[in-house]
Amino acid sequence: MPHHHDNAPLGEVLVSFRLDATARVPAYRQLAERIRDAIAERRLDRGTRLPATRVLAAELGLSRNTVTAAYDMLAAEGWIHSRIGAGAFVASLPDQQPIPLPPLPEAPSAPPGFSRRGEALTWVSHAAGSNRPVPFVADVPAFDVFPLAAWSRQMALSWRDVDPALLGYADPAGYLPLRRELARHLRANRFLRCEAGQMIMTSGTQQSLDLLARILLDPGDTVWIEDPGWVGARVALIAAGARLVPVPVDDQGLSVTAGAALAPAPRLIFITPSRQYPLGVTMSMARRAELLACAESCGAWVIEDDYDCEFRYGGTPLPAVQSMDASGRVIYLGTFSKALLPSFRLGFFVAPPELATAFANAKAIIDKHPPLLEQITLEAFMQSGRFAAHIRRMRLIYAERQTCLIEALRRDLGDILTVAPAETGVHLLAMLRGGLDDVTFCAQARAVGIMLRPLSIYYLGPARRQGVIFGFAAIPPRKILTGVRRLAGAVRA
Amino acid sequence: MPHHHDNAPLGEVLVSFRLDATARVPAYRQLAERIRDAIAERRLDRGTRLPATRVLAAELGLSRNTVTAAYDMLAAEGWIHSRIGAGAFVASLPDQQPIPLPPLPEAPSAPPGFSRRGEALTWVSHAAGSNRPVPFVADVPAFDVFPLAAWSRQMALSWRDVDPALLGYADPAGYLPLRRELARHLRANRFLRCEAGQMIMTSGTQQSLDLLARILLDPGDTVWIEDPGWVGARVALIAAGARLVPVPVDDQGLSVTAGAALAPAPRLIFITPSRQYPLGVTMSMARRAELLACAESCGAWVIEDDYDCEFRYGGTPLPAVQSMDASGRVIYLGTFSKALLPSFRLGFFVAPPELATAFANAKAIIDKHPPLLEQITLEAFMQSGRFAAHIRRMRLIYAERQTCLIEALRRDLGDILTVAPAETGVHLLAMLRGGLDDVTFCAQARAVGIMLRPLSIYYLGPARRQGVIFGFAAIPPRKILTGVRRLAGAVRA
Repeated sequence: MPHHHDNAPLGEVLVSFRLDATARVPAYRQLAERIRDAIAERRLDRGTRLPATRVLAAELGLSRNTVTAAYDMLAAEGWIHSRIGAGAFVASLPDQQPIPLPPLPEAPSAPPGFSRRGEALTWVSHAAGSNRPVPFVADVPAFDVFPLAAWSRQMALSWRDVDPALLGYADPAGYLPLRRELARHLRANRFLRCEAGQMIMTSGTQQSLDLLARILLDPGDTVWIEDPGWVGARVALIAAGARLVPVPVDDQGLSVTAGAALAPAPRLIFITPSRQYPLGVTMSMARRAELLACAESCGAWVIEDDYDCEFRYGGTPLPAVQSMDASGRVIYLGTFSKALLPSFRLGFFVAPPELATAFANAKAIIDKHPPLLEQITLEAFMQSGRFAAHIRRMRLIYAERQTCLIEALRRDLGDILTVAPAETGVHLLAMLRGGLDDVTFCAQARAVGIMLRPLSIYYLGPARRQGVIFGFAAIPPRKILTGVRRLAGAVRA
Repeated sequence: MPHHHDNAPLGEVLVSFRLDATARVPAYRQLAERIRDAIAERRLDRGTRLPATRVLAAELGLSRNTVTAAYDMLAAEGWIHSRIGAGAFVASLPDQQPIPLPPLPEAPSAPPGFSRRGEALTWVSHAAGSNRPVPFVADVPAFDVFPLAAWSRQMALSWRDVDPALLGYADPAGYLPLRRELARHLRANRFLRCEAGQMIMTSGTQQSLDLLARILLDPGDTVWIEDPGWVGARVALIAAGARLVPVPVDDQGLSVTAGAALAPAPRLIFITPSRQYPLGVTMSMARRAELLACAESCGAWVIEDDYDCEFRYGGTPLPAVQSMDASGRVIYLGTFSKALLPSFRLGFFVAPPELATAFANAKAIIDKHPPLLEQITLEAFMQSGRFAAHIRRMRLIYAERQTCLIEALRRDLGDILTVAPAETGVHLLAMLRGGLDDVTFCAQARAVGIMLRPLSIYYLGPARRQGVIFGFAAIPPRKILTGVRRLAGAVRA
């Protein structure tokens, strides 16, 4: 039963209501929407009695029919309800209290178990790490300087003009104009050989890898991975049933000779040639050629993960391995998690031209297609030059943050670790001197709120070196300085 | 080398520039952003010479330092460049012309083949169907009355206030406040037994199914599916290597007796009990109990796909099968593709409480987590009551569209087909009279631009009945009437 309130009556809410005679929205809808907003935003209490249509019409200078039509619309949508002889009242917002269900009998049995495949998919725990920009979280961009407002404006513009044909189910490979922009961008900046038709938009590198592992590998197939290497790739490949062969990384990148000695016929080779994760080595041109020749001779696929290419502070970028491959065996992975934000969930891969349709078919089976809004916004962002400007701006900011971190580490911890500048990316690898254990070091840091990652967890084989990964993008110089000082205090204690 | 233009000089672009003294954004940034926007939107030509800082400062009544700082910011971001003695010029937008790469040698070999699993993932072609709201596309909501503006406003609000901690990598199960709202909504409206911790947000039913098939099934495992049934489920299950057993649907839903006769020990049973797709049957309470007892006795999982529950025009909804299950073997799937829009890519499933973490772990491996923006917007939309109001409003619109379609079909095609009202959802199934072939019928319709789906393609076994599926949500009554008339003309010709 509605109860009456004297505060926040409708008249007060409507005091500034002015009919927009030029709008295409009819008068009754303008009025109804204004009242609806007040109810949704809880400025009008449940049970508030609305003025009689005659009274409100006079007060607002509207025809009574207009007010009646507005009330009818609100009643149809459930915002208000009428009682004969008593008038109209603000309805309760939909009652979201749980309805009590009868108790169930004792469970007759436990649920069935997972499949063997399911066990491989569910064993890695993802207990929430810190998502706050604390020192020195790695692999995330700077949240504090992201152009949220410009992005938001572009989003609203793109959305306002959206073609209704785009609101339904769409191309599984992604929004074509974005794929065109992206192919242009990659040709110009990464020397890729690609056209829009080869681009498959995904929700990020994790999805790209999961999808590719399923399409390219059967359970038991042999895969060369870099050791040390990125854990996300490892878990996706294990979930696909792959037999992982950890191949050592030397100063030219993954060692093809070592790989061939360990397992001469891999089905797939996973590499991060632009900047090996986590060691930071750039794969040399000679090694790239050697790797391609090896893949060629044993009929292997190559996945080239270019996770970190946007922010370059020095040196000359080498062309992507994909651009050296004539046979269509190299699949190039990219992401916007670093260049923009992880929370957009936007990434892609570049398929060989003749196989692109097959990959898109698979994407349709696993989740239909990527969401529209992020794609149309990014397309406009790239098209207008804002994306390139954002990258240039962030590069300056990150260069400053990296310099600040290196100087602070050398000053406050130079006797404990050594660190060299990174030519690209958003993290540094510091090597520990004199047999210090990296896991212990990171635990000491964690105790004072400093997030670091020990190098040794990235080894699948025995950890050959002890180091620590510092992200430098996520926090401003001031916090970098205090963070290093706090860290130095903790590890010396 | 920049070339000069006399048109669209900076002065003209800045004619309405007024410094907002109350804004927290410093003056130099306000000015820089205004100039940047003009460049990005191509209102200022490449090569345009900018006024000297002294001149512009005087013209705008700003300090010269402010103008210099703005120019410096623009130069750092690459929007303008300076040449000593010549002043500052609008830079070219990033050159997105492809860089010519040296030709590659003849392909030494073809790329390797796909895996056996890959073949099962890539065989279904997703050649673009029509996404335009033509008569009578099925399974899509009304684009013409979706509250794009209200959604856009909410999106901007939610985004403006976003917590920076949310911009990085996030909970693989999805945004917790949304999962709370959703659990409340499902308890109140679908009588589910669920808490936020059980909700796993996905990109829609297709991803839910793909993920569940991988976690619950090994290749070769037996699955009961409804026959006829939804093709999307079929392809996801085939991709997972399942052995599909098509089980007939009678007037109470999937026939448990028939299933037990065909394959007595399924590992998983897939059902659409609220409204069987495509026949429209609601599974009776007796059948639900029989099915649960059968799953119990043979240790099977049950997937309950409630794709179509939001729009109810008559009858009383039965509680979800999930609410009758004490053993945690029923997994409930839901989607926002009908209630909102497919292009948001938002769906979810409800996991048994003790297994929710394992499912979230798998979600992290397949694509980390859902995008943030759609989730925070939907949460606010639900929280404010706008979601419930949207559903109520669409229900009225769809009821009218359904009535209009039924009347038109009976009037113009009553001698060829029979049709009964649907109590829920956005499609009707019309049965063809007298041995007409539904594939031929739909081909005749397609020739005049009418999209229909023949019932027979939904059968995995032999098609027992000939019918046609009409979507009624996507187009307004006027187009429904002309569509039926055009259809009648075509099939009589």
